[in-house]
Amino acid sequence: MKSITILGATGSIGTSTLDLVERAPDRFEVFALTANCDVARLAAAAIRTRAKLAVVADERCLDDLRAALSGTNIGCAGGRAAVIEAASLGADITMAAIVGCTGLEPTMAAIARGKTVIIANKEPLVSAGDVVLAAAKASGATLLPADSEHNAIFQCFDASRPERVRRIILTCSGGPFRQRSTEEMRAMTPEQAVAHPNWSMGAKISVDSATLFNKGLELIEAARLFPVPHDAIEIVIHPQSVIHSLVEYVDGSTLAQLGPPDMRVPIASCLAWPDRMATPMAPLDLVAIGRLDFEAPDPLRFPAIRLTRDALNAGGARPAILNAANEIAVAAFLDKRIGFLEIAAIVEDTLSAYDPAAPGTLGDVLAVDTEARSIARRQIAVRNGAFLKDTVA
Amino acid sequence: MKSITILGATGSIGTSTLDLVERAPDRFEVFALTANCDVARLAAAAIRTRAKLAVVADERCLDDLRAALSGTNIGCAGGRAAVIEAASLGADITMAAIVGCTGLEPTMAAIARGKTVIIANKEPLVSAGDVVLAAAKASGATLLPADSEHNAIFQCFDASRPERVRRIILTCSGGPFRQRSTEEMRAMTPEQAVAHPNWSMGAKISVDSATLFNKGLELIEAARLFPVPHDAIEIVIHPQSVIHSLVEYVDGSTLAQLGPPDMRVPIASCLAWPDRMATPMAPLDLVAIGRLDFEAPDPLRFPAIRLTRDALNAGGARPAILNAANEIAVAAFLDKRIGFLEIAAIVEDTLSAYDPAAPGTLGDVLAVDTEARSIARRQIAVRNGAFLKDTVA
Repeated sequence: MKSITILGATGSIGTSTLDLVERAPDRFEVFALTANCDVARLAAAAIRTRAKLAVVADERCLDDLRAALSGTNIGCAGGRAAVIEAASLGADITMAAIVGCTGLEPTMAAIARGKTVIIANKEPLVSAGDVVLAAAKASGATLLPADSEHNAIFQCFDASRPERVRRIILTCSGGPFRQRSTEEMRAMTPEQAVAHPNWSMGAKISVDSATLFNKGLELIEAARLFPVPHDAIEIVIHPQSVIHSLVEYVDGSTLAQLGPPDMRVPIASCLAWPDRMATPMAPLDLVAIGRLDFEAPDPLRFPAIRLTRDALNAGGARPAILNAANEIAVAAFLDKRIGFLEIAAIVEDTLSAYDPAAPGTLGDVLAVDTEARSIARRQIAVRNGAFLKDTVA
Repeated sequence: MKSITILGATGSIGTSTLDLVERAPDRFEVFALTANCDVARLAAAAIRTRAKLAVVADERCLDDLRAALSGTNIGCAGGRAAVIEAASLGADITMAAIVGCTGLEPTMAAIARGKTVIIANKEPLVSAGDVVLAAAKASGATLLPADSEHNAIFQCFDASRPERVRRIILTCSGGPFRQRSTEEMRAMTPEQAVAHPNWSMGAKISVDSATLFNKGLELIEAARLFPVPHDAIEIVIHPQSVIHSLVEYVDGSTLAQLGPPDMRVPIASCLAWPDRMATPMAPLDLVAIGRLDFEAPDPLRFPAIRLTRDALNAGGARPAILNAANEIAVAAFLDKRIGFLEIAAIVEDTLSAYDPAAPGTLGDVLAVDTEARSIARRQIAVRNGAFLKDTVA
């Protein structure tokens, strides 16, 4: 019986995790569940799973949470510090699924306990990679990747013999604009960008799939997680998203993990690791799928590939700046304040404008993140000013 | 440093094994090499690898071997008993690559030593499966499969948790007649049948690939090697032969091994296991391959699928009879004494005509094999007689 804390229990990953945990009451007991402010879902989940503790990050929602849990013996708390405290109480397994840099401090608190932490958000490895890995090394925590690609690599990677791995091949659906020209992409709307062919995801990550920044960020994550040279990690376009990634060994054997496009598969793999647990997935039907295709990514149409690889190779603060600028640019694109192609341009402008020292602490990472966001916002304002001027002229 | 004995050192598998062993002089030293009667190749290999012992199974070739090795300090021997003795001297690793039932006794001798035995021929697991597995259990020997499909499954199969495996998917190229109708297959010549699309192999196994008896025999082998229910092993046609087989787990994860169609990959995997060793293989180029296809096998056009599954399910002597009858039928087809479709018919006739008790010893297996061959020959004679009569009439 393992105790589990879910940081971000009401989001997409949190909900999938709860679904699996509730299907296996003989394996898991819920310790704490946290959410930002979705009191109704959080309270319902806490009651269903007999959680010990429910926490809202937004203190203004605490009274509602108390009311929703009155008459139960589930503890309540509110505020960012309470989320960090809940994480630091050390369940056997912590699912770190809080979106954005807000999730960094609670994730670090869980890592400090030296138990198993499932990483389901990008920031711990992209923005705070060096800091997070050093903390995990110091505490002895086990980090398990829940992202489908990294989980695939994890399942295929012989961690006891990393020197026998010749190459990691990260597969990429190519996103909704895989076959679009640069000129066609220029006019693409948020509605077109969020229509991902294989996965049902939030707007932010769907846009990242369209620009291929998602894959670029995954390239950085893969380099943090798996001890191979950066140039031993390749990206291959695989439109059907059936093979989630591959690991090639020095003997010419390549191992791959395949599965349905449902996050419950990699999450279940992490929850039960090194064992396996049942999920309600239909078996892989290769005959019904019929064919799997592969092509090379086009770095000209998708500058995210180059920008992320450069940021990875340069290291230090570059991945954090790239990630922050991309978030701001995607938000501006979703607000129709910039065009699709300007997302990569804003990221590149921000990287050019800002080059601080490598962050040594979580505080440094958060400061870089804040400053990069502010610079990205300024770049957007400049471009919009220029755009307005052009329109007027 | 591990010592290795290669039983069948001058055949295709033996030659590939020698190639790998000679590339890694820091990992392997050759103990014994055996061959049937190819003295030139055997002596050259023994000299190159500084083997301790060279053995010819055919005693009439011993004088030539002595002459070829005179002036060296490599020991020489000849005859079947000498091959069995060489196998029983217990190198750390024995490669069992003697084609046909002749290989059974030496393989059993190696297994009795309780070391690692790489199984590269079908007979130990198809014809003598129960006997061989019981011997391995008794001696503690480790059996490693060198066949590309079984090696793929072995690489993906969590042997410590077989109950977590939901399904094994054995891939099959479909052979050269994949898209041929039964009527078209009726007229196929040996020359057409041995033209395998992906692998360069001997005539016998190429014909087995055309009838799909090869895949059926592999189905039986897989059922011997991996502790899953028989109906949890499926066959899927995959014409490109890039994915060598797959293992699906209860969580919906499917692991696969991919690689070039070169036997040195699975052989190297066995030689170095659980470590990996370098092979001179080009990296897998998924972009150049472009696409992988999958389709269901057609049991009507390829009765081998049904015959082998029935033999597997019935157990006892059935797989040994099927294997022996198939060998005789394929030889008759290659001699142009029967047509392509008659291969399966002869196998089915032999299975109908002969139903002995389950073999309990290696002697029983060899007796079943001999009798099944004799019955299959009789069936061919009957069919040819009938055919001649028809032609005369």
